[in-house]
Amino acid sequence: MSPAFDRVQDLLKKLPGLGYRSAERIALHLLVEKPERLEPLVSALNDAAATLHRCPVTGNITEGDVCPIYDNPARRKDFICVVESVPDLLAIERSGSFQGTFHVLHGKLSPLHGVGPGELNLGSLRQRLEQDDVTEMILALPNDVEGEATCHYIQDSILSGFDDIALSRIGFGLPSGGGITFADSATLRSALESRKTFE
Amino acid sequence: MSPAFDRVQDLLKKLPGLGYRSAERIALHLLVEKPERLEPLVSALNDAAATLHRCPVTGNITEGDVCPIYDNPARRKDFICVVESVPDLLAIERSGSFQGTFHVLHGKLSPLHGVGPGELNLGSLRQRLEQDDVTEMILALPNDVEGEATCHYIQDSILSGFDDIALSRIGFGLPSGGGITFADSATLRSALESRKTFE
Repeated sequence: MSPAFDRVQDLLKKLPGLGYRSAERIALHLLVEKPERLEPLVSALNDAAATLHRCPVTGNITEGDVCPIYDNPARRKDFICVVESVPDLLAIERSGSFQGTFHVLHGKLSPLHGVGPGELNLGSLRQRLEQDDVTEMILALPNDVEGEATCHYIQDSILSGFDDIALSRIGFGLPSGGGITFADSATLRSALESRKTFE
Repeated sequence: MSPAFDRVQDLLKKLPGLGYRSAERIALHLLVEKPERLEPLVSALNDAAATLHRCPVTGNITEGDVCPIYDNPARRKDFICVVESVPDLLAIERSGSFQGTFHVLHGKLSPLHGVGPGELNLGSLRQRLEQDDVTEMILALPNDVEGEATCHYIQDSILSGFDDIALSRIGFGLPSGGGITFADSATLRSALESRKTFE
């Protein structure tokens, strides 16, 4: 089409969830169909990039010094939920089912992809154990090999010497509304392993 | 999360094909996970917005005075394919099955949505009929009520007095690789109506 257009399309295509066609559609929308939407979007992105940074305590994104969840006195600082990413944190927040504070690792251990403990946000997690007198920790990490490895590393290396902390991993099984017919084998295996006594 | 972040997410959500979750994912990608991708994207968008404009002859987007397809001497200027939008034009170009030139209406007639002939790129279409000694026109407009109405308007009002122009509408029917079981009723109706003698 044109070099300037192709460059926009190429860069949009690299965003998560966008392919060739959806990138083309968005580029045409912003450049041809609704050009009045381009400037507000660009300035909102620039403003957010200038305002937001990573919370030095929890790893969540924040406008202030520390993330608003950690800053909220109603949230238990001694009860930490460890997640892989900010989208995971937001999903748990939306569920409204956790009243402690979060710790975002920004990844999971994956030696094959060159992700070791040094690449994860683990140093500040260790600091929080003492600072906040942590009593309980939930590992809300994915049900895969890397998630498993990350859980073991946290248990063995980060929590060593903190034997009083109650450590758990989120439950795996059938999703709400999901039928057995449509569940994949790994989900069914987890669901069978995590069966509970029916009373 | 934060007002600056919410604003980015709200604006992204308005882009075609993006919902609440995909907008959140893209915002986090550009602001947290891969912030180094933000500046190139923003400047590519600004560059393209400054460079691209609508071709005064065809309605396609272009960097030059007229669109490169119309400017190409190998493309027949007397053979026009009328499309609703630039994505439609690009889809036909990708198919490599049309060697004439295009005319982009940027919409279709829809009185219910306040889209009358004045909102469509029809004035320059009428001009082209004389300027380029047009001999053939394909209406590649959608198979719906608005597409139908737009075809009739072009036939009755734009082409009046140009009785020598061969006017056709693209064929409707089963898509390539599509089975009858999975086709919707409107498609099947079109497919039956547009049946061809089998020789």
